Amino acid sequence: MRVSVVKSRLSAYIEGMRQTFDIKGGPQDGRAHLPLVREQLAAQKLDGLYVPHDDEYQNEYLPDANERLAWVSGFTGSFGSAFVFTDRAVIFADGRYTLQVVDQTDPDLWEVQSVPEPGPFGWLKSQDMSGKRIGYDPKLMSPNDVAQMAKAAKAAGAELVGVTDNPIDVAWADRPDQPMAPVVPHDVKFAGKAHDEKRVEIGDALKAEKLDAAVITSPASIAWAFNIRGGDVSCTPLPLGRAILFADGSADLFLDEVKVSDELRQHLGNSVTLRPLADLEKGLADLKGKTVSVDPDVASAWFFDQLEQAGATIVRDRDPVSLPKARKNEAELAGSAAAHIRDGVALTRFLHWLDTDAQSGEVTEIDAAIKLEEFRENLGGLNDLSFPTISGAGPNGALPHYRVSTASNRKLERGSLYLVDSGGQYLDGTTDVTRTVPIGDPSADMRRHYTQVLKGHIALAVVRFPKGTTGTHLDVLARHALWQAGLDYQHGTGHGVGVYLGVHEGPQRIAKGWSPIPLETGMIVSNEPGYYREGQYGIRIENLQYVTAPAQIEGGEIDMYGFECLTFAPLARDLIDLAHLTKEEREWVDAYHAKVYDLLADKLDGPVKDWLRAACMPL
Amino acid sequence: MRVSVVKSRLSAYIEGMRQTFDIKGGPQDGRAHLPLVREQLAAQKLDGLYVPHDDEYQNEYLPDANERLAWVSGFTGSFGSAFVFTDRAVIFADGRYTLQVVDQTDPDLWEVQSVPEPGPFGWLKSQDMSGKRIGYDPKLMSPNDVAQMAKAAKAAGAELVGVTDNPIDVAWADRPDQPMAPVVPHDVKFAGKAHDEKRVEIGDALKAEKLDAAVITSPASIAWAFNIRGGDVSCTPLPLGRAILFADGSADLFLDEVKVSDELRQHLGNSVTLRPLADLEKGLADLKGKTVSVDPDVASAWFFDQLEQAGATIVRDRDPVSLPKARKNEAELAGSAAAHIRDGVALTRFLHWLDTDAQSGEVTEIDAAIKLEEFRENLGGLNDLSFPTISGAGPNGALPHYRVSTASNRKLERGSLYLVDSGGQYLDGTTDVTRTVPIGDPSADMRRHYTQVLKGHIALAVVRFPKGTTGTHLDVLARHALWQAGLDYQHGTGHGVGVYLGVHEGPQRIAKGWSPIPLETGMIVSNEPGYYREGQYGIRIENLQYVTAPAQIEGGEIDMYGFECLTFAPLARDLIDLAHLTKEEREWVDAYHAKVYDLLADKLDGPVKDWLRAACMPL
Repeated sequence: MRVSVVKSRLSAYIEGMRQTFDIKGGPQDGRAHLPLVREQLAAQKLDGLYVPHDDEYQNEYLPDANERLAWVSGFTGSFGSAFVFTDRAVIFADGRYTLQVVDQTDPDLWEVQSVPEPGPFGWLKSQDMSGKRIGYDPKLMSPNDVAQMAKAAKAAGAELVGVTDNPIDVAWADRPDQPMAPVVPHDVKFAGKAHDEKRVEIGDALKAEKLDAAVITSPASIAWAFNIRGGDVSCTPLPLGRAILFADGSADLFLDEVKVSDELRQHLGNSVTLRPLADLEKGLADLKGKTVSVDPDVASAWFFDQLEQAGATIVRDRDPVSLPKARKNEAELAGSAAAHIRDGVALTRFLHWLDTDAQSGEVTEIDAAIKLEEFRENLGGLNDLSFPTISGAGPNGALPHYRVSTASNRKLERGSLYLVDSGGQYLDGTTDVTRTVPIGDPSADMRRHYTQVLKGHIALAVVRFPKGTTGTHLDVLARHALWQAGLDYQHGTGHGVGVYLGVHEGPQRIAKGWSPIPLETGMIVSNEPGYYREGQYGIRIENLQYVTAPAQIEGGEIDMYGFECLTFAPLARDLIDLAHLTKEEREWVDAYHAKVYDLLADKLDGPVKDWLRAACMPL
Repeated sequence: MRVSVVKSRLSAYIEGMRQTFDIKGGPQDGRAHLPLVREQLAAQKLDGLYVPHDDEYQNEYLPDANERLAWVSGFTGSFGSAFVFTDRAVIFADGRYTLQVVDQTDPDLWEVQSVPEPGPFGWLKSQDMSGKRIGYDPKLMSPNDVAQMAKAAKAAGAELVGVTDNPIDVAWADRPDQPMAPVVPHDVKFAGKAHDEKRVEIGDALKAEKLDAAVITSPASIAWAFNIRGGDVSCTPLPLGRAILFADGSADLFLDEVKVSDELRQHLGNSVTLRPLADLEKGLADLKGKTVSVDPDVASAWFFDQLEQAGATIVRDRDPVSLPKARKNEAELAGSAAAHIRDGVALTRFLHWLDTDAQSGEVTEIDAAIKLEEFRENLGGLNDLSFPTISGAGPNGALPHYRVSTASNRKLERGSLYLVDSGGQYLDGTTDVTRTVPIGDPSADMRRHYTQVLKGHIALAVVRFPKGTTGTHLDVLARHALWQAGLDYQHGTGHGVGVYLGVHEGPQRIAKGWSPIPLETGMIVSNEPGYYREGQYGIRIENLQYVTAPAQIEGGEIDMYGFECLTFAPLARDLIDLAHLTKEEREWVDAYHAKVYDLLADKLDGPVKDWLRAACMPL
């Protein structure tokens, strides 16, 4: 059901695929739509409009109906923003999209600027906009962004105007419908705890903070707090909706009525009041006189405006679902482990295929991505990919956020490396795994670099750490071997991962940028150091792992947290340079491979099983 | 000169010593002085007064005249605060001083509370103070602290009143005079750059930020920016004064006139206007209409009040001297290295003494501290200790901030460890070094723990790291071996160090708490992991090291920073368990010891030289 909804929104490269390899968009979109938006600016007496990529749910994946930036400009990147003025238009994209944004926009219509410098507000600040009225949609921006933009507008001499009817939405005549996938109960055997129980615990936490209620704007939090899933966006089984959790454990859940079945009503029971999404404004107004928390990092300015008008006392605080959702319970961890083992079977079949058929040098990145999706599909129970597969051959592998398209598609040539980062959504868990394999014979540099990345991965897999340690403290462990060799990678080391939810989930993360969130028992994080040799090859090794409960160490005084691995699939033994591994690192690889074989062998047979045996032999 | 000033303020245990081992203060001080303060509260129509330990200069070491907290309570710890009310008095101290604060205050007069929880403002918030007027001295508190306290006072129903005449100062009839040590030029051969040149560079930085001037409240920044030193407090050659730096490189320097000599006037030249400290208020008033930066982390609320009244535009920004001062130039590094080698000679003589005479088991912590000071004094050129020596035998060594007194003095018993953390102030540099040595035969645990600490020290000594790396990123390297053994230490790993200035200097540091300050070429930091077995022994290994310029690594792509060691003195080879060192770690120890011998041997002779040779043999 969810599947058919998602598939219908994609112009699939091959019938039945869950991913597309066409890049839509392009200059013609901006040429057609920019004049329409300008008509609306005139109608609303505006001189300009700010157009962020984000929609009102701030999710990673947007419904087609909310791809406003792509519609008005032609630029389809996953991150960016624009200003549309009556006489000019400026678009902002970051380093990943430098080339794409130029390709996809008409240079006669669009000026291209960079993120983070100057970024949209830095750019605005530097302009002379005296007397101009610039619109923004408070439903699409966080209060912090509005405040920053207001400061920039003031410096530029402009007036900021919050719009009620977004000029793009009015101008967009053939705008797709909002997705209306059914919302379905998520079985408590996967969730591990009844939703009523979860919300009573959250309610107790609200009471402790002297809060009457919390407004929950994140669909992922709603999915977790009510044990429900939806199908409104790609790659994440989100129900687009909103909720208000009360301190007594009861809740208002706002969903479009067409998504609601009798089964869902029964699942939600008496403590949840189902209300149409159109009632949200009224629901917020009902909070008059109450003390209510809202998370300024995930809720748009509109919520703050509404609550202020309603006369509620607003407390800016982290979404109270965020941490309980991040600390996976035993059922969630068991489900995730089971999903990972199934997923590992598919990945192992794919790695075998890479090591045999794909060694011809004639296979393309798209061929490989399709093959991998087929292996996952054939498992049965795949509900979606957890993100579009990163299938990068040779120099394309050196682009950490590469997404293959028919335009960029390369062959997996002999003498090169192939990097594949992929994952699946299963009812019991979400996977995300990266492997790098040689096509033909790898060079000494490739082996040296792979081994340095592997050393970092191992360091972060085996570390023990005390209470209060955050991902920022651990990040260096994954980079240390690379640093000593004069190398580094320009992305984070690990992100949180949901269980049949978002493949990128907060609040914990492992990165150079400061994270104040201590790693706690049950949190799932990725462990994905990499190395990218520009124009030549990319290397990344990614397993998911979860934080284990503090445990004693012989001779030690402080119970230490640790990690347990979830992802099981062979590493590329031909890329490991034993001269650069310590005895302990070599033992780790051997033990990991032994466990891979132990967990997967009886689910495979024939040549794949033989291949796995050889792949998992001690180094 | 400086020496005599400092000595006169100390009740020395032994005539001629630079440190005292008596603990002054005690309950009689509170009993005598609390009533006097309450009289002043009544006179000023106040119901209470907040008494921080900090004085108006926020230095680590206070002149006796500014030890207000000690005077009113009897508590002489280096960190704490109090509320004095008409009917009760509450004092706040942290874990280091839990016992001392109880010992030194009269329980009939003082309630003892903890820092950081609840801390003074958390405590205040929880009280019912309806209608009460609570005084604070805006000269002694940062604007952030005032804001926090105002919030707490509001919650408690109290009114906050900024006092002009601090009731303690009025009540304190026999208050010592403010120190008036002469301010002397600091030779450019040590400073490495003329003060005019330094201030033109800072002025350019102010211009770039569109600032007209910066108010400099930190005496250490003043010492650096004018190439001057003073003698107003213990352990740091600070001139207590204030300055205003202008964007054109000129400056107003506010000093008590009695500190100023003709030599100083000549040194400062035409671009510096010397003004009496009493003119400060007028100097700030002259900034009317100017855009002026002040550092809210080091300047008290009083400065902000004055500038606001003056009609200056205040920009809250880091002290512009802070970073240039932290990035040592070549002359400063060369001076520091020379000072460290001299200091290493004294320390080596002391280590030899510890390994011979002090093995008797009859030597006390005070004996050892005196002996070490004598070795330093005998070098010639010692201007002060850089802090009171931490001389901790057995269980006293397990208190990271231990300060020996006649009451706590223990023998260095056989079968125990002795930890000594000490340093000297020389014209060319400031030292800070910790060594831990066995008295008698060490246990297997002592050797295991020492080796784990050593592994952390080595990891932080040899690491290479890219631009943008801060101390928080590196901190884990020093803890990693301990964590894997279920151990940790509850203090930071490294602090910045000045050159003939503060032994604790910002803004960089190496610690778990987030530091946003990237480590840059020339910054000196300590590397001091430790392990503390409560009631048994403490271990710490501390060298100073400075950040080296980014340099290529063979086969690497990114030029990487690194560290160069400044401190040279033998490690305790009998405490190193070779079974727990990697080949590379062992090689590091051998190379370090070879360099120690190479640098120090020709400055020693006889049995000490023989001992050093043996101490520095390969492991």
